[in-house]
Amino acid sequence: MSLCTKKRKLDKNVQDHLYFDSYADVTIHEEMIADHVRTNTYRMAILRNSNAIEGKVVLDVGAGTGVLSIFCAQAGARKVYAVEASSIADQAVKIVKLNKMEDRIDIIKGTLETIDLPEQVDVIVSEWMGYALLHESMLNSVLFARDKWLKQGGLILPCKAELYIAPINDLVSEDRLNFWSTVKNQYGVDMSCMADFARKCIMNNDITVNPVTVEDVLSHPSKFAELDLFTVTVDQLKSVKGTFSCDCFGSSTVNALCVWFSVTFPGGEKPLVLSTSPFKQETHWKQAILYLDEPVDVEQDTKVEGEINMYPSAESSRHICIHVDYSIGQLKMQSKTFSIPDGYSESQP
Amino acid sequence: MSLCTKKRKLDKNVQDHLYFDSYADVTIHEEMIADHVRTNTYRMAILRNSNAIEGKVVLDVGAGTGVLSIFCAQAGARKVYAVEASSIADQAVKIVKLNKMEDRIDIIKGTLETIDLPEQVDVIVSEWMGYALLHESMLNSVLFARDKWLKQGGLILPCKAELYIAPINDLVSEDRLNFWSTVKNQYGVDMSCMADFARKCIMNNDITVNPVTVEDVLSHPSKFAELDLFTVTVDQLKSVKGTFSCDCFGSSTVNALCVWFSVTFPGGEKPLVLSTSPFKQETHWKQAILYLDEPVDVEQDTKVEGEINMYPSAESSRHICIHVDYSIGQLKMQSKTFSIPDGYSESQP
Repeated sequence: MSLCTKKRKLDKNVQDHLYFDSYADVTIHEEMIADHVRTNTYRMAILRNSNAIEGKVVLDVGAGTGVLSIFCAQAGARKVYAVEASSIADQAVKIVKLNKMEDRIDIIKGTLETIDLPEQVDVIVSEWMGYALLHESMLNSVLFARDKWLKQGGLILPCKAELYIAPINDLVSEDRLNFWSTVKNQYGVDMSCMADFARKCIMNNDITVNPVTVEDVLSHPSKFAELDLFTVTVDQLKSVKGTFSCDCFGSSTVNALCVWFSVTFPGGEKPLVLSTSPFKQETHWKQAILYLDEPVDVEQDTKVEGEINMYPSAESSRHICIHVDYSIGQLKMQSKTFSIPDGYSESQP
Repeated sequence: MSLCTKKRKLDKNVQDHLYFDSYADVTIHEEMIADHVRTNTYRMAILRNSNAIEGKVVLDVGAGTGVLSIFCAQAGARKVYAVEASSIADQAVKIVKLNKMEDRIDIIKGTLETIDLPEQVDVIVSEWMGYALLHESMLNSVLFARDKWLKQGGLILPCKAELYIAPINDLVSEDRLNFWSTVKNQYGVDMSCMADFARKCIMNNDITVNPVTVEDVLSHPSKFAELDLFTVTVDQLKSVKGTFSCDCFGSSTVNALCVWFSVTFPGGEKPLVLSTSPFKQETHWKQAILYLDEPVDVEQDTKVEGEINMYPSAESSRHICIHVDYSIGQLKMQSKTFSIPDGYSESQP
């Protein structure tokens, strides 16, 4: 994490090349398939929507190994177009053959924006979510696919995304700061003054992707944004923002804000939700932690409120930035802008 | 790990800047201090040599947070010159003050090759070891310090380094390959053909730094190189090589060779050894795993033998490459060259 990775304004083609190349490695696909919450929720959502899929045409945006395409074929799709820009598409071809579905699934190697399809589609399925929902911004491609290839009245799986925030007391980082006070006992050298430096290094402007435990969450979550995938535009994704207001459960210390998301699938009486909440089973997305510069003590009902804005970084449109204006109790409003460090893809958690 | 990091021939100054910058972050120092085997062995070695240190002048090469310098002052050194090129030197200044040793420890911010000292030294202490011993090649600076600043008959801590190799059956990677055969049971999609691709991705030409468990080691280790720090030259570090021969304990499958090191401190009847062997307590250096392209079955007394050569990469002199010629039993000699991926410093294990 510490290797100095100077931000450079990369050529868009280089950016895309770096991005798509990272998905050719096996680790990210292993992690995604092994994420049972993710893969199984998609599987159930697709099977539950088999009425809408049976005999129909499906477009899988960013198909990866093609597992969602195969779920759609299993749900009765007449044809699935599986579009994948990275070289993992070559593996998807083999997997589709192994599952004897090559007559129903076409793996199309290319970017969604440049490929051609022989027909409009009834359903779009895509697992486009990145860290903090919007990192790596594959949603743009889904919207492009919707506007160009989805029939009127067609289905999008998932159809809705929601963003949440809550104040937390992240104990992992507190333990790391506290480590420096334990050195004297262990080795007879007082290194307690390193805690200040450690705070500056750890509580920095990076969006830190780590699992947050439910015990660390200090209030009910506040939903600050909702995206309806049928209507949201590429332009609106340039700034996804909203306000939040949280009432703390009790006495504690806020040292960070925590952001996560859920996506909802259409169909059935109770819609299926894939949640990355710290209150639910952990996923490979974990949670996005935004450290405050200084911890703040809170009591029961202390208000943590403000506005949050998520937007693509100026250096690389695939990188997400998060700006937060927040106040805690009676303290005056503070602002901090966070971004995901370079070289931080889903394969490098 | 998977983000495409094209190897570029970096300007030496940029290389150094990247290298020294990475040590300014707190994570690497936290990891090194918390590595009890490392820090405590140095502490014991310094205290054991207090006869040679008391009233003498010490040079600490790559002092980091200055912890070894403080151990030397505690052992009675009259003066310690603590040379550190990265900005962690600023923290070392604070730590030395906190421990009231500013009269005896001078923190000198700069590279060993460019700084000046007011006097020759009696003792050089340095924790210069990188992954696979020679990654990040700080040993060159220790040898430079020895030739320029160490008095005739002076002491070097540690004074010897040894390199070992053994064939292993790395179960972590086998489990990862096997994962793809379990997908069908979980989700009804046969992805077993991904194992081939996974093997190419995982069993690649990277030096993989991971802990190896003692159960995975298939023979007694073979020592293939030894460096006497009093006599070894910078020129000799351009190619550290040796032969090895291992007799397998019993029936198993070799899928990798494992390389590790130990360093030995002078003094006392039984020399103190800091070992990173898989047979000993784990350290932050873990072990260096060199995957074979294909696993090979072995029996009791099957010979695994060959020659190994470690040398700095042509792209970056701080990056280590390992070339191995090996034969297993009756199979013909094979060759493979490994290197540590870009951006892989001790802070990014």
